[in-house]
Amino acid sequence: MFRRFRGAAAAKDMLLDRCLPLQRTERLPSMQASGRVLSQDIFSPVSLPGFDRAAMDGFAVRSEDTRGAKPNAPVILDNFLALRTGMLVPGCYDAVVMSEDCRMRGTTLEITVQLHAYKNVSRIGEDISVGERVFSEGHTLRPPDVAMLSALGIDEVSIYERPRVVIIPTGGELVPIGLRPLGVGEAYEINGLIARLYAEKWGARAKKTEIVSDDEGLIREAISSNADADMIIIIGGTSVGEKDYAPKVLEEMGELFVHGVRLQPGKPTAFGVVAGKPVVCLPGYPVAALSDLYLFVRPALQKIGHRSDRQPKVSARLARKIPSRPNYLSMVRVILKDGEAEPIMISGAGILSSVARADGFVVVPEEREGLEAGETVVVELFE
Amino acid sequence: MFRRFRGAAAAKDMLLDRCLPLQRTERLPSMQASGRVLSQDIFSPVSLPGFDRAAMDGFAVRSEDTRGAKPNAPVILDNFLALRTGMLVPGCYDAVVMSEDCRMRGTTLEITVQLHAYKNVSRIGEDISVGERVFSEGHTLRPPDVAMLSALGIDEVSIYERPRVVIIPTGGELVPIGLRPLGVGEAYEINGLIARLYAEKWGARAKKTEIVSDDEGLIREAISSNADADMIIIIGGTSVGEKDYAPKVLEEMGELFVHGVRLQPGKPTAFGVVAGKPVVCLPGYPVAALSDLYLFVRPALQKIGHRSDRQPKVSARLARKIPSRPNYLSMVRVILKDGEAEPIMISGAGILSSVARADGFVVVPEEREGLEAGETVVVELFE
Repeated sequence: MFRRFRGAAAAKDMLLDRCLPLQRTERLPSMQASGRVLSQDIFSPVSLPGFDRAAMDGFAVRSEDTRGAKPNAPVILDNFLALRTGMLVPGCYDAVVMSEDCRMRGTTLEITVQLHAYKNVSRIGEDISVGERVFSEGHTLRPPDVAMLSALGIDEVSIYERPRVVIIPTGGELVPIGLRPLGVGEAYEINGLIARLYAEKWGARAKKTEIVSDDEGLIREAISSNADADMIIIIGGTSVGEKDYAPKVLEEMGELFVHGVRLQPGKPTAFGVVAGKPVVCLPGYPVAALSDLYLFVRPALQKIGHRSDRQPKVSARLARKIPSRPNYLSMVRVILKDGEAEPIMISGAGILSSVARADGFVVVPEEREGLEAGETVVVELFE
Repeated sequence: MFRRFRGAAAAKDMLLDRCLPLQRTERLPSMQASGRVLSQDIFSPVSLPGFDRAAMDGFAVRSEDTRGAKPNAPVILDNFLALRTGMLVPGCYDAVVMSEDCRMRGTTLEITVQLHAYKNVSRIGEDISVGERVFSEGHTLRPPDVAMLSALGIDEVSIYERPRVVIIPTGGELVPIGLRPLGVGEAYEINGLIARLYAEKWGARAKKTEIVSDDEGLIREAISSNADADMIIIIGGTSVGEKDYAPKVLEEMGELFVHGVRLQPGKPTAFGVVAGKPVVCLPGYPVAALSDLYLFVRPALQKIGHRSDRQPKVSARLARKIPSRPNYLSMVRVILKDGEAEPIMISGAGILSSVARADGFVVVPEEREGLEAGETVVVELFE
C-alpha cells in the first residue's frame, strides 16, 4: 500500500520545499561561462564606450559649424577629420557627418546637412557607465552576456557550481547497456542513461553508479556512499511489492514524505530526504520515469541550480479527445502534425517507442477529466 | 551604395537557397549521440519486449482458470508462479494476477478477480517488433531515443557531421579579448565570440580565425584558406565605406547576392557564395550582428545541419508601443515582466547592454509600421 499518497502538485511542492539552491561557487574564465549562473552581481569597472566614438564612417566636425547647411545651401568647412566607424572623435569635435551628406572639395569639406551636437557619435558611457550594475546574481549567462563581460575587461566570474546528481539504478534483471546479449527475463539498464542525459541537459553534473540488486543493504549502502550529492535519483523498486525496498530504506535512513503520486504514468514514485539531501525514487518503467523527470526532477534541479530555463513549447489543436483518470494528473505523449497534436493513446508505461514517436507531451491537470478534441493545448517539446 | 539591397524575408530565402544540407556522416556510439541528427533510418533488429513480460508484481496464472472469480466467490488455484514486474511469463500461463487481488492459502492461491488473456502481461513485440522502423533519417536524437537504441542493442549509429563554421573577425581597431588593456580607439573583438558560441549552440563546430585587418588581400586570403568550411562568417567591413571590403571581395571571388537588408538593426549585411559555400557578412555592431545571427545564421545552420530545433518563445502583452521603420523588419529587444513585454527603445546597434538586459526579442514584420501597446506578441527568448 502507498502510505504517503499525494496529488502531483502537492508532491512537487513538497519536493521543491526540500531542495535548496546550491551555495557552492567556483570561478571561471568569462569566455567559458556561457550557460552558467552568476553567483555575484557584476558592476562595470569601466565605461563603454570608453571614449566618444564615431557611429558612422565620415568626418568629425563641430556641430555649430554646420548651422543652416542644406542641400541647396551647403556649408564649406576647413576644420574636420576623416574617420571610420568605431574611431575616437577628438574632443575638439562633437559630431560626425556621414560620407553621403558631404563631399571633399580640394582641402575643404562641403556639407549639405545641419548636425546637432553628438549626431552620429556614441558617447562615452552610453552603453554602460563605470560602476553601473551589469548583471545580477542568479543570471544565466548567454553568449552576448559573455561578450559583454569580455568587452568590459572582466576576464573571470564567480558562478554557482553545477548540482551534483548521483543516479542509482536498481533491479536484478538489469544488464549494463551493450555488456552482452540479453538472457531471457533480462533488460538493458536504460533509465539511468535517460536520467543522466537529462540531468546534464538541465545543468547538473550527473554520474551513474553500478546497477544495484534488489537488496535493502546494498541500496542503503549506495545512498550512504553518495551522501555528497545534491540529489540522489534511485530507479526501480519504488512500488509496494515485497522487493520494493527504496521507499522503506528512505524511511529508515531519513524521511519519506511522498510514496505514490496521483500521476499517470508515474504512480509508483517516492521522494525522501537523507542527510538533508533530496532523494527521488523513479519507477522502473521508462515512460513513467520520464514523467517524473520532467514534472519533478527538472524543476528540482532548476531550483538547486538557480536556473529558470524555459521549456520549449508550442500551442496546438488537440486532434482527438484525451481521456484521463479523475483526480490524477496525466502526462500524454503527442505527435505534432500540421498544427495539431495527436495523442499517443498507448497506456503502457513500458512503451518506450511511444516516446520515440512523440514530439512532446500535454499535461491533463488533476481537476480535469480528460481534454476534448479541438481544444487548444500547450505541448511541451521533448528536448 | 548598397547594390543588392533586399527585404529581410527575401534575403533569408536567398541565403537558404544556397545552403545545402550536409552529406558528410560519421558513426558514433549511440550513448554519445544525444542531440545529434540521424543520417540513416533505424529498423529494429529485435522485438521489445523480447518475451512475454509481467507488467505487475504478482502470480502468473492461466486466465481460463480464473473464470467467474469474484471477491465473494474466489477461485482456488494450484497451478501458478510467483513473479515480479519485468520477469518472464512462461508459455504455460497467459495472465498475471496482482498481489492485491489474491492471497496464498498454504500451497494454493485464492483469486478474487476474473482475468482476461494477457491481463498484466506486456506481450512480446508490444513496444517494437523486429524489422519495424524506429527512427527516420533526419531525426534529432533525444535522451529517451538514445535509450531506445540501447534497449534494442543498437550500439552505434550513423549521424550527420556537425556543420563546420569558420568565423573571420575583421577590423584594425580590434584587440583579442583580454590580450592587453585597450588603447584609445580600440575595442575587444567580441562579435566573433558571440558568433562562435551561438554557432556551437546551434549544432555547428565553430572556429574563429585571428583578427584580420581592413585589407582586401588579407580578407581574400582568410576566405581562401578556409574553403573547407560549410559556412564562413565574416564580421565587420560590410557597409558601403571605402574600407568595407567584405562585399567587394565576395563579388570578386564568387557571387554577392545580398548587400544591404531592410532590417533594423542589421542593414549593413551581405551574403555571398564562394566555391559553393555560403559566406555571411555581419556588421561590426554587436546588436546588429545578433539580429543577423538569429534571423539568418540560425536557420541557415539548421538547414545545413538537418536540424529543426525550436526556439524557446513565450506570448506576452506589449507594454508600450514599438515604432518601426516602414518596409523594414525590426528586431526589438524586450524585457519580460509579469507577462508583459517591455521594449528596450535604445536604437544604437552598438548598445550591447540592451541585449544583456533583454530576455528576448520581438520581430516587427516588414508590412507593419510598429506594434501597438497591448498587442499580444511572440517573444523569442535569447538562449
